[in-house]
Amino acid sequence: MSATRTNATVPWLYNITVEDSNWIITSAFMIFTMQTGFGMLESGCVSIKNEVNIMMKNVVDIVLGGLTYWIFGFAVSFGRSEFNNGFIALGDFCIDPSADNPLKGAIFAAFLFQLSFATTATTIVSGAMAERCNFKAYCMFSFFNTIIYCIPAGWIWGEHGFLKKLGAVDIAGSGAVHLLGGSASLASALMLGPRLGRYDNGQGPLPLGNPVNAVMGLFVLWWGWLAFNSGSTYGLSGEKWQYAAQAAVTTMMSSFGGGTVSILYTMIRLGGRIDALDIINGILGSLVSITAGCFLYQGWEALIIGVIGALLVCTSMPLIDSIKIDDPVGASAVHGVGGIWGILAVGIFAQSPEPLDTTNGRNGLIKGGGWYLMGVQALTVLCIGSWGVCSTILMLWGINKMIPIRMDVHQELLGADITEHLVRHSQVGVSRALSAFRAVLDTKEADNLNSVGTNPFHEKHLGLVKLLALKRRRLSRISRIVSRNQNLGVKKVKWIFPKWKQSVKDAAKQDIASKEGVTLAWVH
Amino acid sequence: MSATRTNATVPWLYNITVEDSNWIITSAFMIFTMQTGFGMLESGCVSIKNEVNIMMKNVVDIVLGGLTYWIFGFAVSFGRSEFNNGFIALGDFCIDPSADNPLKGAIFAAFLFQLSFATTATTIVSGAMAERCNFKAYCMFSFFNTIIYCIPAGWIWGEHGFLKKLGAVDIAGSGAVHLLGGSASLASALMLGPRLGRYDNGQGPLPLGNPVNAVMGLFVLWWGWLAFNSGSTYGLSGEKWQYAAQAAVTTMMSSFGGGTVSILYTMIRLGGRIDALDIINGILGSLVSITAGCFLYQGWEALIIGVIGALLVCTSMPLIDSIKIDDPVGASAVHGVGGIWGILAVGIFAQSPEPLDTTNGRNGLIKGGGWYLMGVQALTVLCIGSWGVCSTILMLWGINKMIPIRMDVHQELLGADITEHLVRHSQVGVSRALSAFRAVLDTKEADNLNSVGTNPFHEKHLGLVKLLALKRRRLSRISRIVSRNQNLGVKKVKWIFPKWKQSVKDAAKQDIASKEGVTLAWVH
Amino acid sequence: MSATRTNATVPWLYNITVEDSNWIITSAFMIFTMQTGFGMLESGCVSIKNEVNIMMKNVVDIVLGGLTYWIFGFAVSFGRSEFNNGFIALGDFCIDPSADNPLKGAIFAAFLFQLSFATTATTIVSGAMAERCNFKAYCMFSFFNTIIYCIPAGWIWGEHGFLKKLGAVDIAGSGAVHLLGGSASLASALMLGPRLGRYDNGQGPLPLGNPVNAVMGLFVLWWGWLAFNSGSTYGLSGEKWQYAAQAAVTTMMSSFGGGTVSILYTMIRLGGRIDALDIINGILGSLVSITAGCFLYQGWEALIIGVIGALLVCTSMPLIDSIKIDDPVGASAVHGVGGIWGILAVGIFAQSPEPLDTTNGRNGLIKGGGWYLMGVQALTVLCIGSWGVCSTILMLWGINKMIPIRMDVHQELLGADITEHLVRHSQVGVSRALSAFRAVLDTKEADNLNSVGTNPFHEKHLGLVKLLALKRRRLSRISRIVSRNQNLGVKKVKWIFPKWKQSVKDAAKQDIASKEGVTLAWVH
Repeated sequence: MSATRTNATVPWLYNITVEDSNWIITSAFMIFTMQTGFGMLESGCVSIKNEVNIMMKNVVDIVLGGLTYWIFGFAVSFGRSEFNNGFIALGDFCIDPSADNPLKGAIFAAFLFQLSFATTATTIVSGAMAERCNFKAYCMFSFFNTIIYCIPAGWIWGEHGFLKKLGAVDIAGSGAVHLLGGSASLASALMLGPRLGRYDNGQGPLPLGNPVNAVMGLFVLWWGWLAFNSGSTYGLSGEKWQYAAQAAVTTMMSSFGGGTVSILYTMIRLGGRIDALDIINGILGSLVSITAGCFLYQGWEALIIGVIGALLVCTSMPLIDSIKIDDPVGASAVHGVGGIWGILAVGIFAQSPEPLDTTNGRNGLIKGGGWYLMGVQALTVLCIGSWGVCSTILMLWGINKMIPIRMDVHQELLGADITEHLVRHSQVGVSRALSAFRAVLDTKEADNLNSVGTNPFHEKHLGLVKLLALKRRRLSRISRIVSRNQNLGVKKVKWIFPKWKQSVKDAAKQDIASKEGVTLAWVH
Repeated sequence: MSATRTNATVPWLYNITVEDSNWIITSAFMIFTMQTGFGMLESGCVSIKNEVNIMMKNVVDIVLGGLTYWIFGFAVSFGRSEFNNGFIALGDFCIDPSADNPLKGAIFAAFLFQLSFATTATTIVSGAMAERCNFKAYCMFSFFNTIIYCIPAGWIWGEHGFLKKLGAVDIAGSGAVHLLGGSASLASALMLGPRLGRYDNGQGPLPLGNPVNAVMGLFVLWWGWLAFNSGSTYGLSGEKWQYAAQAAVTTMMSSFGGGTVSILYTMIRLGGRIDALDIINGILGSLVSITAGCFLYQGWEALIIGVIGALLVCTSMPLIDSIKIDDPVGASAVHGVGGIWGILAVGIFAQSPEPLDTTNGRNGLIKGGGWYLMGVQALTVLCIGSWGVCSTILMLWGINKMIPIRMDVHQELLGADITEHLVRHSQVGVSRALSAFRAVLDTKEADNLNSVGTNPFHEKHLGLVKLLALKRRRLSRISRIVSRNQNLGVKKVKWIFPKWKQSVKDAAKQDIASKEGVTLAWVH
Repeated sequence: MSATRTNATVPWLYNITVEDSNWIITSAFMIFTMQTGFGMLESGCVSIKNEVNIMMKNVVDIVLGGLTYWIFGFAVSFGRSEFNNGFIALGDFCIDPSADNPLKGAIFAAFLFQLSFATTATTIVSGAMAERCNFKAYCMFSFFNTIIYCIPAGWIWGEHGFLKKLGAVDIAGSGAVHLLGGSASLASALMLGPRLGRYDNGQGPLPLGNPVNAVMGLFVLWWGWLAFNSGSTYGLSGEKWQYAAQAAVTTMMSSFGGGTVSILYTMIRLGGRIDALDIINGILGSLVSITAGCFLYQGWEALIIGVIGALLVCTSMPLIDSIKIDDPVGASAVHGVGGIWGILAVGIFAQSPEPLDTTNGRNGLIKGGGWYLMGVQALTVLCIGSWGVCSTILMLWGINKMIPIRMDVHQELLGADITEHLVRHSQVGVSRALSAFRAVLDTKEADNLNSVGTNPFHEKHLGLVKLLALKRRRLSRISRIVSRNQNLGVKKVKWIFPKWKQSVKDAAKQDIASKEGVTLAWVH
């Protein structure tokens, strides 16, 4: 066992036993599944002509966000060096412990766990930028977004961080992950401006693209969140396993409270009907709210925190729309507003988890802990929120100098799936958009694309089959061919197929040659 | 470590080591993923105009089911009090161990694990009630359904339970979870009556709404089931890990047997074709069958149990339809019939898992254990099955007094997605239904809804673009605007967008003003 | 604890502690989730008229592949018997340790873990055979495919294997799983021939059927891969946990490298656009590449291996199409080419993971290990690649003698969903295909099928409602009925429904009787 390694000279991040490693690595694996959840939720919320685009942005978030987390993200959050200061750490760039490093396993496990947090945090903002952000500009944003997340993560979680030194408590990241993501979402939605025509008819929501996928995304995020919060005990050894269990229970309790109040909220708002996005965001909001102090609360406190969190999120969504900040999935409300409440809730309800030093022995207001903790938590909200807004605005402003962050008008109206990914959806207005733009744009390439899910080559074959069949001519010949195919040997497959095709084609040509006016209009 | 805690004075439910806690918590996390599976399976099985409704019902199941499990569910199953009797436990309502409770971690872990079982159990019935159950009545059912599940769960698993005292064996809930869910499904399908017109043309099945999602749901349930059964060793310490491994293997073996026989069954029934729902329900049936005695069997026995379970489920599905009980996803057959067989199979095949006291040292018939165990298992079937049917009928009867459990005729024909969730699907008959009801109902709100996945605001913009382009007038002006947009700065985005919109609108107005008879029919 | 069991007289496969068992079983559970990933990826890649078919093939792979793995697969890979030789093992058929076997738990755990690998391996090939392989022939292939996988798995991983004895290193199966699957894919794509008309218009790809599902499949595979590689330390005890953490980090690092280069590749190829399949297969290729030596590399080496792997896969996809081998999902490139590079990379970069004996103390070329390891790795590529191609060709040739492996022409043009599973999709050309074939085939059954997701019975009811409403006759009667339904009691539900139906029907009949020429054309 690694008992000898569990000692005080090792930083807490690397101070893990074999038991802890199991918990940390397994939790990280489950946290990564939240990417699936974010992808399904976001692609389910946007209009269909942008659904592939948002999935690809999620892929880019993981790939570029992960790469930069390795290069410089972990370094500015948790690096060890003499240049560290309260604002930023500056060591362990491209962290890569060598084979003879006695802490090797612990360093890899710590990096993996923090990586799973980082990629999740940087994915949050993709929803707020949906349906109108240029893909290449987004890639650039994704590449540098890591730094926006990692500096405040260091404030709270790094040994050097000024908030950590003041005693700020944010166990699984209501602040460092969610408030940061939420404030960045707000700033980016503001910078991009609303989608074309978004507020032409008031502030009513657009129809979701695929509500079933959106709810599925909620489910995947929900179970991932258990690992997110419960895994943040960062191990099971000693008394940690007890708090891991508590964190999982409070997470579920909060979502029960949040879910119940969301159902009531949406029923009141819509006269007895249930809006899927209200429920989804209410539950996510309650999960965000419980995250900062997940194992510092009793079950009933978690329930209350979830109820308040969901209410705040549900009511702030229309408020954000009312000032015409267009956040297609409601990320600003869910992660921003939920995150603020989550951090402040620690100041109210926290109970120091003896013997762990998570809160440095401090308690929340109602546990007789006084105002110090609450003050630090409020300062945390202020610092992270303003950092999130300001750094995002600055970064998008800079990127926009190089690549315009907003899609061109015609790209937005056509949808990013066809303009960026050559994916053509049918039945959702893409053909109309192409038709409208045909006079002013070269739409030839797009016109030649086939719709998602069809097999255009088959349609050509069918046209020929039909032509023959309609003519009632070489009927017996076709049926002979079809029946012969039922006994095809492998080698026969090789030659009979071209031959069959040829014979059908020849027949069709003869037909066409022998008659005028045969229309094959429906064959593409 | 918590070795000192592992002693006989602590109830078995809370008698866990740190090693066990890892297993229990991780298993619970994985069991929760089964909710994703149920959601996808059920939404994939119903018609598209009800797919969002069934997902929302699954959300409600978790939220309200979870809340009530905390309030009174755990209490009546596992509570500790002097009022406990063989029928019901009556302690630990709103269980919430305080910070100084030495069993705190164990209690939270136990509650979490049982919670994951409870939410799964209460979700089963949602499929049977699909496509015709009023949403608000369902919410009420969901709220109280917990009690239907929790009382018999206490009979088998609680220290107080009369079936447990008799020696009934139901490791992971073929009875307490599945037979209960299946009999409640049957009762609720009976109470609700068949969907409108369901048996107009014989008993052939309706087309699935999204077979890919349904199979995906099967997959998610399948892997979740591994944690369900394997996690039911309730730890890994001592010899428990060996039985955890065995439970996982028998679970897979049973599904292999069940899957193989389902493929044969459906091929015979359909003359060589493969019905997706036959395969899905056959495999689920075999998984239900293995659940009661998962680590009491050898691999080959698991295979046989799965074969028989799948056959029983596949053949009972048409039987249930033949008596015109309309269970859209086949939950009665899968969980009810599969559950009965699962409990009885223990009486035939069980091998006492030394040194664990799961079966109190008793063996099944073919292991020379005699008829006692079989008798108790049969009694378990009888008790749980009749409880499930009777309590569900009683509860739905009571709810129906307050809110009619059956949707109105027009709601059912329009689909619950549009009437309850304002989600309008295209191409699946909703517009036809609206058109049919227009003369008798106020359909204005529904008529104004836009189809899922479209962006109606864009269509307006496109109409204007097209009008201009068709007129070949301000062509150069538009292309100038479009090209200018390719170099948009952030601040320009702010003003050019409204301006662009305005210029297009002005142009369109002038056009319209200068001509009569310009039809913009396709612009909404 | 099981400390007494950890000793040298037990084969390594069964030499596990309770700590290891947790890791092994949990990893196996997560590896099974990769089946969900393969299913979604493959069904998202094929045309919609074949999407259910490919899901069912994935189900069959698990069911029949799992069954045969138990019967003979594990036996020829890891069986213990006196007949074992360097080529094949021949013991432990239908492995099923009895209750008194002291290694029982270890054997079940080992079987479970190897089973999760085997079902994954045998699923790879299903994508390459998509859209044109006869279902029954595929079932037969699935049944025997196990043997194609299990013999070379024994070469590398079994105590008896000649490659293992030579010192070949393939930790998590770049060779035994992926190269084998990739070479079998290539051979089967070659045997089946291209889909009808596939190369009529050059080698451009067909549109994906559901790109969102395909990317979701990528996500699920990605996180499953973490368990695949990390779980291959086969435990956490001793120093194994350190390498488990390292394997997870290198797996992510490789995918970051592979993802980044895929984004660049696709942007260059498509002039700034992003093709979803390029990204998906590039990332999967990098994951395949890291698999053979996952915990033998530093992070930066993993990055390079991923970059090279993704580049090789992305560039070989068009090459395979250029020789008209039609592999719809690119399995040959991803698993075959990625697998070759993965095995060879061990020869270049491997660092012996002290104190584990994974590489028998040997190092790769750049670690000063000399050419021996590289030579053995090259031999491994040669042996597995040629075995994969030859055995697959032989097996498909044999199966084709019994059941033609290629679908009939009309089945392929109609799509396998309707011909094999009676699932009728709308809007994707199926109706056109039926219409074309109507003159030469009996399409009556297919014509009577209702489209996925619709409720045909409702349409009949609606027709009657509309008829009445249009006639403005019994308007008050209908609205009375509708309003009465709003207060339905349970018992009323029972009788009012048939009565309502009857009354509407009667009204309709009278209407029809009293007038000629009433057209109900729109009903159905």
